[in-house]
Amino acid sequence: MEKREGEGEGEEEQVVNPWTVSAKGGRKIDYDKLIDQFGCQRIDQSLVDRIHRLTSRTPHVFLRRGVFFAHRDLNEILDAHERGEKFYLYTGRGPSSEALHLGHLIPFMFTKYLQEAFKVPLVIQLTDDEKCMWKDLTVEESQRLARENAKDIIACGFDVTRTFIFSDFDYVGGAFYKNMVKVGKCVTYNKAVGIFGFTGEDHIGKISFPPVQAVPSFPSSFPHLFGGQDNLRCLIPCAIDQDPYFRMTRDVAPRIGYQKPALIESSFFPAMQGETGKMSASDPNSAIYVTDSAKEIKNKINRYAFSGGQDSIEKHRELGANLEVDIPFKYLSFFLDDDDKLEEIRKEYGAGRMLTGEVKQLLIQVLTELVERHCRARAAVTDEMVDAFMAVRPLPNMFN
Amino acid sequence: MEKREGEGEGEEEQVVNPWTVSAKGGRKIDYDKLIDQFGCQRIDQSLVDRIHRLTSRTPHVFLRRGVFFAHRDLNEILDAHERGEKFYLYTGRGPSSEALHLGHLIPFMFTKYLQEAFKVPLVIQLTDDEKCMWKDLTVEESQRLARENAKDIIACGFDVTRTFIFSDFDYVGGAFYKNMVKVGKCVTYNKAVGIFGFTGEDHIGKISFPPVQAVPSFPSSFPHLFGGQDNLRCLIPCAIDQDPYFRMTRDVAPRIGYQKPALIESSFFPAMQGETGKMSASDPNSAIYVTDSAKEIKNKINRYAFSGGQDSIEKHRELGANLEVDIPFKYLSFFLDDDDKLEEIRKEYGAGRMLTGEVKQLLIQVLTELVERHCRARAAVTDEMVDAFMAVRPLPNMFN
Repeated sequence: MEKREGEGEGEEEQVVNPWTVSAKGGRKIDYDKLIDQFGCQRIDQSLVDRIHRLTSRTPHVFLRRGVFFAHRDLNEILDAHERGEKFYLYTGRGPSSEALHLGHLIPFMFTKYLQEAFKVPLVIQLTDDEKCMWKDLTVEESQRLARENAKDIIACGFDVTRTFIFSDFDYVGGAFYKNMVKVGKCVTYNKAVGIFGFTGEDHIGKISFPPVQAVPSFPSSFPHLFGGQDNLRCLIPCAIDQDPYFRMTRDVAPRIGYQKPALIESSFFPAMQGETGKMSASDPNSAIYVTDSAKEIKNKINRYAFSGGQDSIEKHRELGANLEVDIPFKYLSFFLDDDDKLEEIRKEYGAGRMLTGEVKQLLIQVLTELVERHCRARAAVTDEMVDAFMAVRPLPNMFN
Repeated sequence: MEKREGEGEGEEEQVVNPWTVSAKGGRKIDYDKLIDQFGCQRIDQSLVDRIHRLTSRTPHVFLRRGVFFAHRDLNEILDAHERGEKFYLYTGRGPSSEALHLGHLIPFMFTKYLQEAFKVPLVIQLTDDEKCMWKDLTVEESQRLARENAKDIIACGFDVTRTFIFSDFDYVGGAFYKNMVKVGKCVTYNKAVGIFGFTGEDHIGKISFPPVQAVPSFPSSFPHLFGGQDNLRCLIPCAIDQDPYFRMTRDVAPRIGYQKPALIESSFFPAMQGETGKMSASDPNSAIYVTDSAKEIKNKINRYAFSGGQDSIEKHRELGANLEVDIPFKYLSFFLDDDDKLEEIRKEYGAGRMLTGEVKQLLIQVLTELVERHCRARAAVTDEMVDAFMAVRPLPNMFN
């Protein structure tokens, strides 16, 4: 997370864009304000219920618990789905590090659910070009990380008959590049500054990048998948810090004759030290990594997971835990699927009848299982499987 | 030629960049000043003699007459050539119109001579992406024009066993895109503004373009041609208005571990109405087109070619023609290969013993022949030949 111009300490506003997430004076991100600021919609219970009805399955825990909390045109996608029209999913990852943490898995776990629930094709963009430019990695290192991250993504359980994973360094060109040029023509530098906060000292590679992330929203960027289906709608599951790219994309789309992509957007997975933004790759104790051992998970949670419990047992029994700031409880609300169990914890821990130690114990168990399951799945991902997912190929059964 | 900010009528300086050529108060371009301003070198007689010696053939008329008048590192390319090292040529065209005029042919006629004289491979970039963005053409129209222009280029007589012609819309991607990102990382927006005069209201597509024109200077952008030959040097024949792109490229090259491209740069072919800049595509009478009929050529020259002759025959006999401004004489100095004949005209016409009508007559003859020869050659260019030149393929005999 880099600091950018116009974000001094004195500045009061929260800043959320693809490179910066910082709240007012180190406080929590105000998501209601963000929704207003960005102009997206909140996902309410009736929308969750509608998804339940349409998919005939319990909505994903991230939907039930409000992790994915905002959207753009999601109702229109569901209308189309109800009419029997097809759509496709688009998500992505900037491959800047070898080891993913739990926050990185969230969009992929959720996207897998959407793919299964709606039986739709999915394109996953690995923005190795972006990371090469922003993180000053070499082209080769960015591409290596892209392949490594692809293994973690595949380990989330995507269906190879419906999923195309691509690296920008490999795939930019042809129809994709033509769409990049079409998008680039519609966005002035001043407009890009307004959306992304570029400054004159940013290099032109960065300024060139937004069209690269925009064009997977358009089916014509994937002629081998969607040749001729230019009106196919796209739904993008992503964290809300990516909204600026797609605000730009939605602004441009009708001007170049394309459908606006719909969005379903998540809040940020909190750091171990507390919920004030995204996790930091530079502090290994701020997050649980999918490469952490059971022992590391246990130690990290016991030592670093910020507790909302009171200072003494007596006070805790009296006042209960502050669940608003309690990280073990927050993490369980992301990863404990059992609604009744979570509700019980909310009551018991909140009332002080349950202690932080017990909640941490349960979290250690849940995350150790999750990470071990992920590791087993990842170990089973071969280079041939990566090649299969990344092959530029038609997917004849992607809508079945 | 678009007017850009900072170029008001009151502004005294000449402006030469890829989109604007305008001299101080409508006067002629001051090429000496341009050389100083850009920091390139003048091609002197000893350099022409050296090329003569190294190639064992009479230097091209454009070299003998100073049409190609400036360079960067040309001596280093010749040093390398003398040591038996290889290099390659890179030139290009922005396909913005169907019909080329004579000025458009100049870099290609000269590049063909260089290819034959040095027996070197050549890449020709058709910047259909650039024209799509600057001229607001559709992607499809730009690509159509690129193929049409490729036919005119092929008609100049390039050797298919040494020549790769590519359209950006087709070829951007892979190794080429990786180099674009490497270049983009090294150029700040402020720097690009300094070089190209972009403003905040220019779209980000334009700001993204300079790396596209930069990277054909690097052999690694063409793995099918120069795989592994990363130190191969590149010589770029072009008009001097393209110098900003390659100043930027030469600045970036060592920072990404590449050789700086060398340049050999031409002055502008004057308009029929007089030598104050480039010709204008919007005024068909300002130029001779390769599609003009013999009758059109005759009419245009007789009616519109600006004469340096005097108002009356008496005065002409007394003062002679002003060859500095005489377009028929200028045009002959580009296209009449016979040095003795040109010298005779210079003397006789300059002394008033020859009249404008006679000079125009000779020019009509020379250009009619040239255009008819070009038309015959272009008519013989089939779609299969275009495909052959544009195929992404190795050129195993390109240095033989």
